[in-house]
Amino acid sequence: MQSTKPPGGTRDFLPEDIRRREYVIGVVRRIYERYGFEPLETPAFENIETLLGKYGEEGNKLIFKILRRGEHESSGEADLALRYDLTVPLARVVAQYQNQLPKFFKRYQIQPVWRADRPAKGRFREFFQCDIDSIGSTSPVVEAEILGAVAEILTTLGFQEFSIRLNHRRLLTALLEKAGVPEAGHGEALIVIDKLDKIGEAGVTTELMAKGLSADVAGRVLASFATAGHGALAGLGALVDGHAGGTTALEALNAIVAITPAAPHIKIDPSLARGLSYYTGAIMEIAVTDLAGSLGGGGRYDNLIGMFLGRDVPACGFSLGLERIIVVMTERKMFPPSLAAGAVDVVVTFMDDDSLPEAIRFASDLRSLDIRAEVHPEVTRKFDKALKAASGRGAKFMAVFGENERTLQQVSVRDLVKREPLAPMKRESAAKEIARLVGRER
Amino acid sequence: MQSTKPPGGTRDFLPEDIRRREYVIGVVRRIYERYGFEPLETPAFENIETLLGKYGEEGNKLIFKILRRGEHESSGEADLALRYDLTVPLARVVAQYQNQLPKFFKRYQIQPVWRADRPAKGRFREFFQCDIDSIGSTSPVVEAEILGAVAEILTTLGFQEFSIRLNHRRLLTALLEKAGVPEAGHGEALIVIDKLDKIGEAGVTTELMAKGLSADVAGRVLASFATAGHGALAGLGALVDGHAGGTTALEALNAIVAITPAAPHIKIDPSLARGLSYYTGAIMEIAVTDLAGSLGGGGRYDNLIGMFLGRDVPACGFSLGLERIIVVMTERKMFPPSLAAGAVDVVVTFMDDDSLPEAIRFASDLRSLDIRAEVHPEVTRKFDKALKAASGRGAKFMAVFGENERTLQQVSVRDLVKREPLAPMKRESAAKEIARLVGRER
Repeated sequence: MQSTKPPGGTRDFLPEDIRRREYVIGVVRRIYERYGFEPLETPAFENIETLLGKYGEEGNKLIFKILRRGEHESSGEADLALRYDLTVPLARVVAQYQNQLPKFFKRYQIQPVWRADRPAKGRFREFFQCDIDSIGSTSPVVEAEILGAVAEILTTLGFQEFSIRLNHRRLLTALLEKAGVPEAGHGEALIVIDKLDKIGEAGVTTELMAKGLSADVAGRVLASFATAGHGALAGLGALVDGHAGGTTALEALNAIVAITPAAPHIKIDPSLARGLSYYTGAIMEIAVTDLAGSLGGGGRYDNLIGMFLGRDVPACGFSLGLERIIVVMTERKMFPPSLAAGAVDVVVTFMDDDSLPEAIRFASDLRSLDIRAEVHPEVTRKFDKALKAASGRGAKFMAVFGENERTLQQVSVRDLVKREPLAPMKRESAAKEIARLVGRER
Repeated sequence: MQSTKPPGGTRDFLPEDIRRREYVIGVVRRIYERYGFEPLETPAFENIETLLGKYGEEGNKLIFKILRRGEHESSGEADLALRYDLTVPLARVVAQYQNQLPKFFKRYQIQPVWRADRPAKGRFREFFQCDIDSIGSTSPVVEAEILGAVAEILTTLGFQEFSIRLNHRRLLTALLEKAGVPEAGHGEALIVIDKLDKIGEAGVTTELMAKGLSADVAGRVLASFATAGHGALAGLGALVDGHAGGTTALEALNAIVAITPAAPHIKIDPSLARGLSYYTGAIMEIAVTDLAGSLGGGGRYDNLIGMFLGRDVPACGFSLGLERIIVVMTERKMFPPSLAAGAVDVVVTFMDDDSLPEAIRFASDLRSLDIRAEVHPEVTRKFDKALKAASGRGAKFMAVFGENERTLQQVSVRDLVKREPLAPMKRESAAKEIARLVGRER
């Protein structure tokens, strides 16, 4: 007998899992569409050249590669690869359809991606990404609207206390330069600073010095990032002090905060680094009280599309951590109770073969009133057995047809939640009566 | 510069494509759920052993295989393979979660599958399948409900004239045995009979004789299938004449037709063969007037799950041809016109930088009334340019904020469909007024 588990790092989604995911996706879609974002989907795999070299050396290793078909199969060569993120396919799409798409294009994309990471708790090889991107403008309106939409989604899902950490790549550069870190060491220094929350100020100093910075420089780095961290834009102005890139960056952040509806949630945080190397401007990340890690992040990347198009096109994007949102909402019981309801509202049962046609007709009547109804497929001669089957389906009511009901033109209905029979209903009005009871009247 | 086309046989789905697909999927889901089917999803890839040997020799060749990762990558070995259909993963899931799933389990699954077919017009390497399956009962209620749901979906989508061809595997066997075809020749004979519509009676006779049947036997085969084809169950009863399997099959078909709400659409058709070898009982296929090919098909398969579970579990399924349904509905203009509407209802434009905050606030007001609104990201000093940009987004209205509007606490609104300005609206009531105009009032 073969194994029947899904492959390592992947999951089967049973009905309740899907209902939870669809609930979140429904909110995400509705709000993104209100902000003028349009849906886009790309194939599960891309030509392998499209993906290789876009995610760094580590990324290359995590790409799932597909064998050439036919006579080439035995060569072991791969010509296709599974989607690794939604940003590179978007860049390809923008280049391919540049004449069809509006100059200012806003899309959302909600699809699975695949990464050959070592599977671990909460880390999967197949998981959904949920991205929005605005293409074609460098205006701060872009960041302001993206952050507004993200904040509205989180609020609608029931998250009360969250903050949006906001920083700017050029502010990072300015602060490092001002502190005296040589340009070649910026990357390493940012990785250390990113750990401030975890290893504290002493830890950061030690690690910076291990990377070859003097005690003096390390101290100034720490001062810039740690002390300004919880401060306002004014304090940063003094630190940047006339640095051209830093000044531009602060102006950009000011402009975003001034207009975005998400302003109450925003915290300017110069220690936010974000891993990806392609960001060129504002960067942002969601932090939730009492929750390690983030629920999503993004930033401006004005050069990536040029890799496919041959000329740069400004862009800014945000990726919501759909999987993590679902985990947190499940743990904190934030889903509406109606999602946990069973598959059907009413199970219709027949007690003898002659009652089957009437049972099917009654199910049709219920469905025409938008009630989820199911005919239990086997004749049930024992009431207890029927009851058990109907309860097992999570139904609210069981409707029973037998010789008696046919003769009297009635339906016997049992409330499965209260575990008691209702007064027999007239056959002709029973469907409407049940619709009223399950709140589906109109 | 790299190619920016999607890989051969795959497609990028632009906003309008997705809206059409989501519309159809929305109807499918709603109706399947009314019949008590629950959603299920499985990973994009399976362990390769799960798929190999399930689809015949030809099928094996069309499976996309994924290279082992890490140090094994250079070996050219594959350990995973992309989903080829939704039935084999379902069988695996039923075996894996047998204690968690209800004994009588009804699921729908709408996900892409991948087949390395040679790409051709209307034939893709990535396409959606849309399956329902009922697990756990041999009752004709199962077929009756599946056919009822499918007929309701097609009617709701706007298909008027369609028929459901219905046959039974054991009826096929009975007719061939009665006609004198040796058992070893049944498979080949069915393939020929399946072509009756295309090559006619003379063609079928010639091909049957080429397969080694005598003129006498070929004639009897043709008589069974062609003459009974459009007839009633009664005629078939005479042909089957006491053959045990054939009699059982006719009883099963009778029972289905007697109770299914889809009865008006059903045509018993003994020439329907269906390709897949795993069917064991009733088989069915949708035919639409003036349309070659089918919009979907399915049947009963009582042995497949046993390959994973070790004991047989009865099952019956139906696969709707989602891609074909979308093509036909597009060609026949069956989609509601609202789907072709643009990405936004209102584009909000600001004519000077000082008007931007008010433009953003107004967009928020519109969104809180469920209106899709977008702030054009760049300041627009020329009205013509603003108009062009807003029209390009497919918007119905453009709302303009400039110095004048700020001073007078007004909004200038232009109807982009009628191409005329409206009377200026008071800022405080403008959002509600526009909601009324786009039919979003409540």
